[in-house]
Amino acid sequence: MYLKKPYVLFVGDIEDDLAAKVAHGIADWRPNDCVGQIRLPECKATLELPELTIESAIEKGAKTLVVGVANRGGGISQTWYETLIMAASHGLDIASGLHQLLSTVPNLSIVAEKNDVLLYEARIPNPPFPIANAKPRSGRRLLTVGTDCSAGKMYTALAIEKAMLARDLSVDFRATGQTGILINGNGVPIDAVVADFMSGAIEELCPANDSKHWDIIEGQGSLFHPSFAGVSLGLLHGAQATDLILCHEPTRVHMRGLPDFSLPSIEKCIAANLSAAKLVNPDVRFAGIALNTVALNNQDTMKIINELSQEFGLITFDPLKHEMNDLIDFLLSG
Amino acid sequence: MYLKKPYVLFVGDIEDDLAAKVAHGIADWRPNDCVGQIRLPECKATLELPELTIESAIEKGAKTLVVGVANRGGGISQTWYETLIMAASHGLDIASGLHQLLSTVPNLSIVAEKNDVLLYEARIPNPPFPIANAKPRSGRRLLTVGTDCSAGKMYTALAIEKAMLARDLSVDFRATGQTGILINGNGVPIDAVVADFMSGAIEELCPANDSKHWDIIEGQGSLFHPSFAGVSLGLLHGAQATDLILCHEPTRVHMRGLPDFSLPSIEKCIAANLSAAKLVNPDVRFAGIALNTVALNNQDTMKIINELSQEFGLITFDPLKHEMNDLIDFLLSG
Repeated sequence: MYLKKPYVLFVGDIEDDLAAKVAHGIADWRPNDCVGQIRLPECKATLELPELTIESAIEKGAKTLVVGVANRGGGISQTWYETLIMAASHGLDIASGLHQLLSTVPNLSIVAEKNDVLLYEARIPNPPFPIANAKPRSGRRLLTVGTDCSAGKMYTALAIEKAMLARDLSVDFRATGQTGILINGNGVPIDAVVADFMSGAIEELCPANDSKHWDIIEGQGSLFHPSFAGVSLGLLHGAQATDLILCHEPTRVHMRGLPDFSLPSIEKCIAANLSAAKLVNPDVRFAGIALNTVALNNQDTMKIINELSQEFGLITFDPLKHEMNDLIDFLLSG
Repeated sequence: MYLKKPYVLFVGDIEDDLAAKVAHGIADWRPNDCVGQIRLPECKATLELPELTIESAIEKGAKTLVVGVANRGGGISQTWYETLIMAASHGLDIASGLHQLLSTVPNLSIVAEKNDVLLYEARIPNPPFPIANAKPRSGRRLLTVGTDCSAGKMYTALAIEKAMLARDLSVDFRATGQTGILINGNGVPIDAVVADFMSGAIEELCPANDSKHWDIIEGQGSLFHPSFAGVSLGLLHGAQATDLILCHEPTRVHMRGLPDFSLPSIEKCIAANLSAAKLVNPDVRFAGIALNTVALNNQDTMKIINELSQEFGLITFDPLKHEMNDLIDFLLSG
């Protein structure tokens, strides 16, 4: 199931652009899917999109209002209720990745049902999922894996999809987290799937395809993050990747949320992912290292890129700073 | 939460002893917890327990009726309804690990509520569970891991618990699957937990304890079973094991349910489990290899035990055939 497009992005009255992470993600990666934004008067987020109302959004063709907010706590502010009710009563589907469910907004479910409107919760999977069968599948599947959580796996996958689309390749981004799902309009929130079905849900997300088709799959967590490694492994086995990209944030001093856990070495992380991935595809390979160098200056960025590319013989890049033709050429050569 | 003991075991009208797996498990491992069995006239299962009715079971002190059946499809036969309703109306809690829920039996929920009776579904976890924090915990924790699913992980754990109890050690079996949960009267059905909380649920199941206390944790699946390896890894990280036992069925020709997947070598399986377990406890070690030799004669059993114990320098045994004093001595020495 895909969300109906185009979207209008709702950012409420949030205090800064960080809280508008989802809206910025959609505006960055799917600009043609957005007719504009709806902001409440107090809003401090600054998206470069036309300012709309529910009525003008519908006039411009909007089919879904996406709550573009990822705030602390994941709550739905009471100040948003009026806009959400109005969207539903005007026939707009509503999509949200917040922790608090849309169905908890007073009357919203009733208004939605009356107007045949979908309330889409990006955090809630849609079972049933199959148990993974691990049968070999045709098609190319690239999975982004990480040394840690929040190392750039979603952005790297989206950037590779964009670079492949620019070369007219047959490609789909496959989302596995709520932000990616809202950007893409579909996907599986893998961390919310019942444990037994993790790999099966991913097999269903990226099924057998034409031999020249690329699925670019958003990874989650890290095999070295002790809170979430089981999810990362279930995803890795379900993906049956042909190609892996390692995502790494070079200034990170410890595993996210765990001050006593240091990051694995790049070498160890590559070896562990390759070993686990070979269980379902003996021919899988690493195609590159994607660095999140937002905290580095240009000189330090080039230094670490030179070091890592020499040490591992892999194309090393920052997907937000560098063009990726070398990587795409390498992927196509495999 | 523990089920109220003692139990009366209900085996309905099942066709053979294989379908009475849960009842046999309870009768084998918790004989003092069973006042007897209730069978319908057509029943072909043969438990060596007193034949009771609901009334006589209650007279003998029964507090919970456990559905001791693990049949194909996991259904509740209509022929059982009368007994289940009568149990609830007489104030017996009812516990089941079947796929079909007790709440689907007509009127059973109503009768249970009226009589303040618990309907316990061993397949359904009881959230909320925490996200794993991987903080070092005191106490000893032994986890059984496997080359494959159904390789004897539950029986090995129960046999080690029994051998430790015989030596007056402080020990708890920690169940992670529905049969183990019904045998033990509590536990977490880890394959049914939401992916993000797998390791956290296990941390909660076997918390920090006295330095001489042993938790013997039932493993699930295998790091080499592509359908379920993510569950096995989540369990492994949550367990923060001090000691591991590898469980193996030497006549198995392929991974359970996957004819195209051969079993990993013992060497590879030990290395992968050790490497992953060290993430949360660098001092973890393998303490032994538990073989399920039910399909081997005595000569072949001794041959493979000699071979493996020499090759890996680990105590190698069949927990159902051999006494385990050497293993317990080794565990206590660590």
